[in-house]
Amino acid sequence: MIKKRFEDIQVGEKATFSKTMTESDIFAFAGITGDFNPIHVNAEFAKDSLFKQRVVHGMLTAGLLDQTLTNIGGAGNIHLSQLVKFLAPVFIGDTVTIISEVVSKDPNKNRATIKSTVTNQAGKTVLEGEALIMIPREK
Amino acid sequence: MIKKRFEDIQVGEKATFSKTMTESDIFAFAGITGDFNPIHVNAEFAKDSLFKQRVVHGMLTAGLLDQTLTNIGGAGNIHLSQLVKFLAPVFIGDTVTIISEVVSKDPNKNRATIKSTVTNQAGKTVLEGEALIMIPREK
Amino acid sequence: MIKKRFEDIQVGEKATFSKTMTESDIFAFAGITGDFNPIHVNAEFAKDSLFKQRVVHGMLTAGLLDQTLTNIGGAGNIHLSQLVKFLAPVFIGDTVTIISEVVSKDPNKNRATIKSTVTNQAGKTVLEGEALIMIPREK
Amino acid sequence: MIKKRFEDIQVGEKATFSKTMTESDIFAFAGITGDFNPIHVNAEFAKDSLFKQRVVHGMLTAGLLDQTLTNIGGAGNIHLSQLVKFLAPVFIGDTVTIISEVVSKDPNKNRATIKSTVTNQAGKTVLEGEALIMIPREK
Repeated sequence: MIKKRFEDIQVGEKATFSKTMTESDIFAFAGITGDFNPIHVNAEFAKDSLFKQRVVHGMLTAGLLDQTLTNIGGAGNIHLSQLVKFLAPVFIGDTVTIISEVVSKDPNKNRATIKSTVTNQAGKTVLEGEALIMIPREK
Repeated sequence: MIKKRFEDIQVGEKATFSKTMTESDIFAFAGITGDFNPIHVNAEFAKDSLFKQRVVHGMLTAGLLDQTLTNIGGAGNIHLSQLVKFLAPVFIGDTVTIISEVVSKDPNKNRATIKSTVTNQAGKTVLEGEALIMIPREK
Repeated sequence: MIKKRFEDIQVGEKATFSKTMTESDIFAFAGITGDFNPIHVNAEFAKDSLFKQRVVHGMLTAGLLDQTLTNIGGAGNIHLSQLVKFLAPVFIGDTVTIISEVVSKDPNKNRATIKSTVTNQAGKTVLEGEALIMIPREK
Repeated sequence: MIKKRFEDIQVGEKATFSKTMTESDIFAFAGITGDFNPIHVNAEFAKDSLFKQRVVHGMLTAGLLDQTLTNIGGAGNIHLSQLVKFLAPVFIGDTVTIISEVVSKDPNKNRATIKSTVTNQAGKTVLEGEALIMIPREK
């Protein structure tokens, strides 16, 4: 986890991260954020819901993008914005794989745009993201 | 935490949530997401960084939006997308307050757009969000 | 989560909260409290015990009463006492539902008595509680 | 942590446990129980409250009784009921010491009554408890 200069980051560069989503992740995330929506933390409620089971918080899956942004942008990068589209539910036990890629750079502002795709173990796309990061100039 | 019908949600309706951001939140979030960027989890590295101290993961602060979306959309709402702009850093010990408000509704698709503003204890805006949620029609 | 005045609280007023009890809850609670009784944290020991499986700490289930007391009493209420009767075991995966109700008020002391019943997904009562809370007078 | 027979437990027998209460304990307990009362998790709100700082959840301090009950009653004891009186607030950084003592036994029902006192580092009593436990007869 080193610092990078803006020049080190290449369009087309990729980073990936993969992880099984567990019940304990959901409950830890609910505990941090205060979101105890029964669709996430109540197995009985979830049985009768649209998806018939508990669903991982979308923003928890979105949080997994972070690691790939850190890998691409380096230790000192600044996360300016993040767009996330939740395309399909993620369930307990699903294994998600993030692939993030630098799609453009703005040398005037030291900014890079990074697109991310998250798929589950069946290859289905569950989330798409677009981040804007900045690499501060060294003095 | 009840289910709501799309008709129950009103443009102008608001929800709020407030919480002090702690060191333990950062480490729990790092543990869930795998983002161990030293700017978040390494106090020595952070001392020499732009902000001179550890910074809360932007996506962790963004996760706090969830609770307000749940309060507005009810137990069965579906989070379709989320845009987040990180405007200022959040530090350990900062108390953040989220205010989320329904800004528009699309009755054809049962969707609502919710804008969120997150401020710190000094009144500074640290994050702005825009969410799209859907309330599934009951059969 | 607003402050309430004593006058705002009505006899008969109710609050409810519902949550699936998970293995990660048990281990987090053991870690906070230091109660590593094998009946809670040792699956092998628990197999040979009276209930044939690990049991959720009674005081953890009792902790869930807190949220309903906060909802009824508001942000500034003071918890003076709590009686809890553990009537049946709660197991990992059980979904418990708390219903708390204001049963009496003492205007001389700004105190309210709140009775709670906790049931599992089969409708069995697993815990009964009786709390005394106080709402401090504003100066 | 062994099993005990009812005969092993003596009136006058004591157990003790001591621990500093930390910010991370509070946030973990809020996360397990869903009680995000600002008096516990919002440093700014707490500054303007009766106690001028965040207060540990009473039921969290009460949870510390568990370990002493387990030490006295052994691995197989069953917690039947618990009365807790919250006498003074516990703050972040306070070190609490629990002393629990068997005050009576009911040989007909294999039950024991255990009284607990919790003091802080200044010697002030912050909590008193009375538990009823049962030791199941071996078959």
